[in-house]
Amino acid sequence: MNDQHILRAYDRDLEAIQAHVLKMGGLVEDAILKGTDALTARDVEAAERVRQGDKVIDALEESLNDEVARIIALRAPMARDLRVLLSVLRLSASLERVGDYAKNIAKRVTVLAESPGLGGADASLKRMAREVQGMLRDTLDAFVRRDAELARDVLTRDEGVDQMYNALFREILTFMLEDPRTITPSMHLHFIAKNLERMGDLVTNMAEQVIYLVTGEKPQDERPKGDRTAFMGSPGANGA
Amino acid sequence: MNDQHILRAYDRDLEAIQAHVLKMGGLVEDAILKGTDALTARDVEAAERVRQGDKVIDALEESLNDEVARIIALRAPMARDLRVLLSVLRLSASLERVGDYAKNIAKRVTVLAESPGLGGADASLKRMAREVQGMLRDTLDAFVRRDAELARDVLTRDEGVDQMYNALFREILTFMLEDPRTITPSMHLHFIAKNLERMGDLVTNMAEQVIYLVTGEKPQDERPKGDRTAFMGSPGANGA
Repeated sequence: MNDQHILRAYDRDLEAIQAHVLKMGGLVEDAILKGTDALTARDVEAAERVRQGDKVIDALEESLNDEVARIIALRAPMARDLRVLLSVLRLSASLERVGDYAKNIAKRVTVLAESPGLGGADASLKRMAREVQGMLRDTLDAFVRRDAELARDVLTRDEGVDQMYNALFREILTFMLEDPRTITPSMHLHFIAKNLERMGDLVTNMAEQVIYLVTGEKPQDERPKGDRTAFMGSPGANGA
Repeated sequence: MNDQHILRAYDRDLEAIQAHVLKMGGLVEDAILKGTDALTARDVEAAERVRQGDKVIDALEESLNDEVARIIALRAPMARDLRVLLSVLRLSASLERVGDYAKNIAKRVTVLAESPGLGGADASLKRMAREVQGMLRDTLDAFVRRDAELARDVLTRDEGVDQMYNALFREILTFMLEDPRTITPSMHLHFIAKNLERMGDLVTNMAEQVIYLVTGEKPQDERPKGDRTAFMGSPGANGA
């Protein structure tokens, strides 16, 4: 009876923790889309709201950490339960970082507000943002449903984000070479694209974390890394 | 007697964990310096060694995670001990990320090997790397000695790294505007500078973590953020 009582209390704790993660995740998804929308609309006020919203995300991470520590100290969970709780710490740390990147995108709206859009760059950024947000949503679903298949599906999609980034990197280089007046806004756009690419990497790490939680196995290392720009010389130097 | 026995076993566990963190930290310090040296020397082989070395850092993080989970499950540590163990998880996650950034710097050596150095950029990057490495060394010392003062000192130094980054950002923009042939190497150099600036931020977070561990207090939020480039238009548009 007493054991069962403890069990139920622990389940309630765990449910509360998961709801907390989902809430945090929902805010981060929102920040990704709204940060990028604010950018493409050159909407300084919307950007400011995204920046303010990041404080809520940070506070949620802190209280999640405290809550997990409290449960570990109180319930002394064993093996599998502990694994779930430690996963939550890692997932929330990644969420906080994704939120930070969204805030950094919003920060650049001010300086870009004076620049016209460059070619199809805005549309590409929006596409990247939507894809990363979708990957994050599915990762959180996979976490709550303990669905390793769905998490594996997320892994395969990161390469698409990387490819969008690579294409945009080359496009931005071309803008700068063709018209030096675009150099300053191009540098900022490039930052934003790189931030979205990094968000994709973080979400991919989260999906790997979910797979490990569900199956106990780490996905084999060295999945295809799609950011090839570290090796890129001038546009045209290495085709496609 | 039995309690004392348990206490001693826990202390031994904790010492082993801390030695493990220091080992990982030492490798990351090395990667920061050697990655940047490989870059400024345009030494492709040295860069490859840094990239390979990152696998060891990643493996150390994984085994540290497993070890912490094992100790929590085995010893069910309370309050303060648990706080130390959870801090270790956060510190090692940050170390792993700093190591990743160092690896990313090393990755760009190949493409930059064909480019001559640009102005004083190489010297600036080396200065940034040395400063970040020093901050990391002191943060790890502060952790082991539970020295909040030393950790606070690290916080004040991040602004210096940010200022070096800001100056370099402006310098790089100027290169590109003056000579479009420098655009491609400039983009890579800029990435590297930004990676070093982010490493400084991560080390600062680690120092805050140490302060929290020692004092139980989180340093007040919103310390001065030194990266102003998110608000920078063309060089000269906003002085200093």
